[in-house]
Amino acid sequence: MTGALYVIGTGPGNPEQMTLEAQAAVAASTLFFGYKPYLDRLELRPNQERHASDNREELARARAALDAALAGKTVCMVSGGDPGVFAMAAAVCEAIDADRETYGAVPLSIVPGITAMMAVAARLGAPLGNDFCAISLSDNLKPWTVIETRLRAAASAGFAIALYNPISKARPLQLGKAFSTLREILPNSIPVIFGRAIGRPDEAIQTVPLADAHPDMADMATCILIGNAHTRVVPRDGQPDLVYTPRFVPEAENE
Amino acid sequence: MTGALYVIGTGPGNPEQMTLEAQAAVAASTLFFGYKPYLDRLELRPNQERHASDNREELARARAALDAALAGKTVCMVSGGDPGVFAMAAAVCEAIDADRETYGAVPLSIVPGITAMMAVAARLGAPLGNDFCAISLSDNLKPWTVIETRLRAAASAGFAIALYNPISKARPLQLGKAFSTLREILPNSIPVIFGRAIGRPDEAIQTVPLADAHPDMADMATCILIGNAHTRVVPRDGQPDLVYTPRFVPEAENE
Repeated sequence: MTGALYVIGTGPGNPEQMTLEAQAAVAASTLFFGYKPYLDRLELRPNQERHASDNREELARARAALDAALAGKTVCMVSGGDPGVFAMAAAVCEAIDADRETYGAVPLSIVPGITAMMAVAARLGAPLGNDFCAISLSDNLKPWTVIETRLRAAASAGFAIALYNPISKARPLQLGKAFSTLREILPNSIPVIFGRAIGRPDEAIQTVPLADAHPDMADMATCILIGNAHTRVVPRDGQPDLVYTPRFVPEAENE
Repeated sequence: MTGALYVIGTGPGNPEQMTLEAQAAVAASTLFFGYKPYLDRLELRPNQERHASDNREELARARAALDAALAGKTVCMVSGGDPGVFAMAAAVCEAIDADRETYGAVPLSIVPGITAMMAVAARLGAPLGNDFCAISLSDNLKPWTVIETRLRAAASAGFAIALYNPISKARPLQLGKAFSTLREILPNSIPVIFGRAIGRPDEAIQTVPLADAHPDMADMATCILIGNAHTRVVPRDGQPDLVYTPRFVPEAENE
């Protein structure tokens, strides 16, 4: 008898930022797949089995989870943030697509979660309060020319930009190249937010003008938000600066 | 003594898709502001007061909530979805910015929620599984030329696109214009998803090729997702079609 596969997002890491629906999927599952730091966020019962894996190998992990569901298990694939944003939902879909006859009938439920850019934005105000985009800087899966084209298009058209997977030991240079590209297009004063591990004990967040943004300010766990030309930084008494992008765009703007 | 202001998102509408953090903010608050259908999603106690309002008037609503917090109340401003995505967080920031001396010291907590595009995407697979953007089609706050520039830039650079505020009685024409613009750039076969009221009893979702996308398929409560040239529709035995955008972009692509 076929089991089921849940693909869930834990949100940024604080269990308070999970949805009830995701928590119910965790409670219903007996076998868990995912990157170890994400599995570590869950409080599992002794009879709930964990298959922790490296951050790469997404497709193999997706197949293993689908196979376990086919074998009758109720399986939970765990992503950080939202599973549909640079995470495991696409890998599971790719595995099903590549072998529809085997995997097409597996009951699949994808459960959304709070993705990093929303958690970072909420901490500071509303930097994504107008049109915005999300770009992964990892060139493991797409050529750098595509990433650069998308950065230029987004900045030129006035989108606020969220950068995912900004930097890693294997990819130390992409973020610096991205900042250089953006500085060719955007004013130096545009706010850049580095948000790390929101809601976790090691949370860190800082806002600097684009002129001062440096790759050293980010690590693998950082999501970076870049404002548009209208994004404002508002100092407040006794509270952190507010950063927001107004809902309106002036009539005169010729973008 | 100053109270506090929470700005929360209910997610798409099903209480199961709220976070624990948002539920805790609701439990702690005594006075609620927001668009009536969003307030109706909350199960409030008899001593929790509601100030329901029209969907316009965001800035006046923000000021009223800040004034109540200044007067010592614990106030909850309720958005659907995520408060930072075309919702009340930016309006609250604008109200604070316009009167920093009065409102700058109000303790403000913005609590993220599941935004519509993530909920729609999760229902079908991973249509936002690669780089994507979110665009509001409302030209109440920005000129149509800006919206059209952003649609062209996003489609030309290969972003998947989520359209918010696609249509209303007062704005019946924008969505048709947007589809026309996108048809000039994108292949007619690209999947377009109309997702409505996800997780609520009147949920409805359909996927059509761009050639067949029509404004009649949307209403105010619809979020529309448009794939990129690589987005795939996968038929499955006894389950709805899967729609996903692969994580990889082929090396050969010259975008």
